[in-house]
Amino acid sequence: MKSYSKILDGWFSEICPMWPGIALSLEIDKILYSKKSKFQQIDMFQTKNHGKMLVLDGIIQLTQSDEFAYQEMLAHVPLFAHPNPETVLVIGGGDGGILREANRHDCIKTIDFCEVDEDVINVCKKFLPDLACGFDDPRVKVHIADGNAFVKAQKSRYDIIIVDSSDPIGPGEALFEQPFYQSLKTALKPNGIIATQGESFFLHKEC
Amino acid sequence: MKSYSKILDGWFSEICPMWPGIALSLEIDKILYSKKSKFQQIDMFQTKNHGKMLVLDGIIQLTQSDEFAYQEMLAHVPLFAHPNPETVLVIGGGDGGILREANRHDCIKTIDFCEVDEDVINVCKKFLPDLACGFDDPRVKVHIADGNAFVKAQKSRYDIIIVDSSDPIGPGEALFEQPFYQSLKTALKPNGIIATQGESFFLHKEC
Repeated sequence: MKSYSKILDGWFSEICPMWPGIALSLEIDKILYSKKSKFQQIDMFQTKNHGKMLVLDGIIQLTQSDEFAYQEMLAHVPLFAHPNPETVLVIGGGDGGILREANRHDCIKTIDFCEVDEDVINVCKKFLPDLACGFDDPRVKVHIADGNAFVKAQKSRYDIIIVDSSDPIGPGEALFEQPFYQSLKTALKPNGIIATQGESFFLHKEC
Repeated sequence: MKSYSKILDGWFSEICPMWPGIALSLEIDKILYSKKSKFQQIDMFQTKNHGKMLVLDGIIQLTQSDEFAYQEMLAHVPLFAHPNPETVLVIGGGDGGILREANRHDCIKTIDFCEVDEDVINVCKKFLPDLACGFDDPRVKVHIADGNAFVKAQKSRYDIIIVDSSDPIGPGEALFEQPFYQSLKTALKPNGIIATQGESFFLHKEC
């Protein structure tokens, strides 16, 4: 599977076989970064009206204008649902937004942060410092590693696991398959909570 | 203000000065209807993956694939929030979707339905019969009239008023201005409830 996004007449369009027949387009002022990492194509655009935008393999990951909604929902719902979350694992989310929100919970003692693509972290630290501001918290330990392999090695260790994956295309594909979910369950402490990026109920009705 | 939507390479793009720099595009199989009424340009498209789509003055009103979310939220939240809604006014929404949902509430005795553009009703009855199925309920009285003028003539009459307007461009413009909201309040019974289409918090942050 491959996405076919492109810039035409100054507009970037997210055209992808995962959601055929529908596309979101944003007007672009400037390409700030465009380079292939070991894992994926990383693009950072200055949009005309929605701040900077991070795109991986042609798929929009976030814009500055609305990223808060995603980060806040994915981080705070499980963290407030748990009576005393002390040990947290965040898989994916190299932009650092989930860390920024999770760090606000004083009861947390340690956050393991596992991202496969170090270049995403570095690009976000450079272009989105307000987003990628959570890496320096002393409770955060960064692991540059495959999330699937990382979680497989953990047993009854985490109160909360947050999976901030990209889509089931490219490096994040294994994070949508059953063995990964079994590993997540094993890595949780009793009464632990998992929250994951689950694509869109409107675009993937068969799931 | 004018929208600049267009079909290019088989894709319809909703490009509008109300949300500059961002556009939603859908792939079109067929143009089913395209004609200017007394009030606005009415287009009905067969999309490739989202069923039929109603477009007024270049702005997407609904697709069959997700219209339920809008109709259900705008109708059922106020109707369930009121202890005994008997008299209801629906302004706009010529597609009939709000009527379809409101009709499910047995406690309702009368629904005044006020739509300015009869052509929208007729086009939807023809192409979207599953949506425009609520007009024949004996409790519904259809008024082809300007919503702003209609509501101004009512006093303490409705338990619920639902404003299913189009956007503040074209015939729906007055439905976003203060005098209209004052008329709505006067038209409500004590403890009545108003629910309106309120545009998007993400796209209109200054509102």
